[in-house]
Amino acid sequence: MAVDVVVLTVTDGVFSVMLVKLRRPPFEGVWGLPGGLIGDDETVEGAAARELAEKTGLHDVHIEQLYTFSRPDRDPNGRCLSVAHMALVPAQEAALRATEKYAGVAFFAVDELPRLAYDHKLIVAYAADRLRAKLEYTNVAYSLLPERFTLGELQGVYESVLGQKLDTRNFRKRVLELGVVVETSDVKRGVAHRPARLYRFASRKPTMIQRTLV
Amino acid sequence: MAVDVVVLTVTDGVFSVMLVKLRRPPFEGVWGLPGGLIGDDETVEGAAARELAEKTGLHDVHIEQLYTFSRPDRDPNGRCLSVAHMALVPAQEAALRATEKYAGVAFFAVDELPRLAYDHKLIVAYAADRLRAKLEYTNVAYSLLPERFTLGELQGVYESVLGQKLDTRNFRKRVLELGVVVETSDVKRGVAHRPARLYRFASRKPTMIQRTLV
Repeated sequence: MAVDVVVLTVTDGVFSVMLVKLRRPPFEGVWGLPGGLIGDDETVEGAAARELAEKTGLHDVHIEQLYTFSRPDRDPNGRCLSVAHMALVPAQEAALRATEKYAGVAFFAVDELPRLAYDHKLIVAYAADRLRAKLEYTNVAYSLLPERFTLGELQGVYESVLGQKLDTRNFRKRVLELGVVVETSDVKRGVAHRPARLYRFASRKPTMIQRTLV
Repeated sequence: MAVDVVVLTVTDGVFSVMLVKLRRPPFEGVWGLPGGLIGDDETVEGAAARELAEKTGLHDVHIEQLYTFSRPDRDPNGRCLSVAHMALVPAQEAALRATEKYAGVAFFAVDELPRLAYDHKLIVAYAADRLRAKLEYTNVAYSLLPERFTLGELQGVYESVLGQKLDTRNFRKRVLELGVVVETSDVKRGVAHRPARLYRFASRKPTMIQRTLV
């Protein structure tokens, strides 16, 4: 039994996943997900957070259990199930720290992955799909953004993850009407643009956006 | 590593879970969830379906992986993780078959559970919450109903699972407007009531009902 962590972020408009270069056969030099074995006295969620902090320096991030992957042939070394987790980080906190455990650590565009070890390509695809679904009916985007942001930055995160352009007027109308974000009294001043209003999420805890049927 | 299965149904208006009476210490005579160990050559989903069929006679039901429970003290016999699954069955297919493995098998109201073994009360609560959330934004109710049903029967399933009365006019308007169910050309004739139109789900595959934000 192992845990693996899919760390997702949006950096410079690119929906990205953190990968580590593995050191050991049969996947020496191949990229994969950070992870490791579960300790006797910890939960799987605890193991995922610990592995992530120890091996990549990321801590205090939004992390949730995703799915347990169990195809009998997924590990050439023998039977090993992986309890996959998803971690979401804002771009500015996605600084990486090299560790001895891995030969490298870097972010890759989710839609341009290199060869990955084990069934990690499947796990990344599952995490990306889960995030896309959650963007539509939860406030999960808060975990990919700083405390305060412009509506353009929010829309940019949605567009990068969903891989499609959204209608700006309609998107802004929806997020405001549904009470997902609220205005602050501050603006962001850029060089080339006029000042843009800064917003914050109404809640930075996981919340469903709207009841659809009842 | 084990799998456990939370079988949920709505029978006679009561949101219910299937429990089995365990035979072995330390939980002899205590109710719990059906489950068992994962075979070397099967996935966890395969193990869940196999255990359910072998030990309760239920097969060809909607079954999905739910969450992996891993509290270190969850099993007094030693470290054992449980990959919990949720199975949903229409009331008329919830017939139970006794097997040698268990001392009994029965449905209990989800909100009136007896003492349960291990962390099974936590797992049942997690499954019930998942189902309640999915009722709101997916068509999952199809797995709790026969092929054709009246809108009253559909609303009854929603009310039983959610534990609250719904406004009939509003509920019917929503499910029809959102295209969740479609009319058939048949009616159901009861003894005391006038004939009621029969409906079917537009799709009997898992589908999200409506995009909320984009």
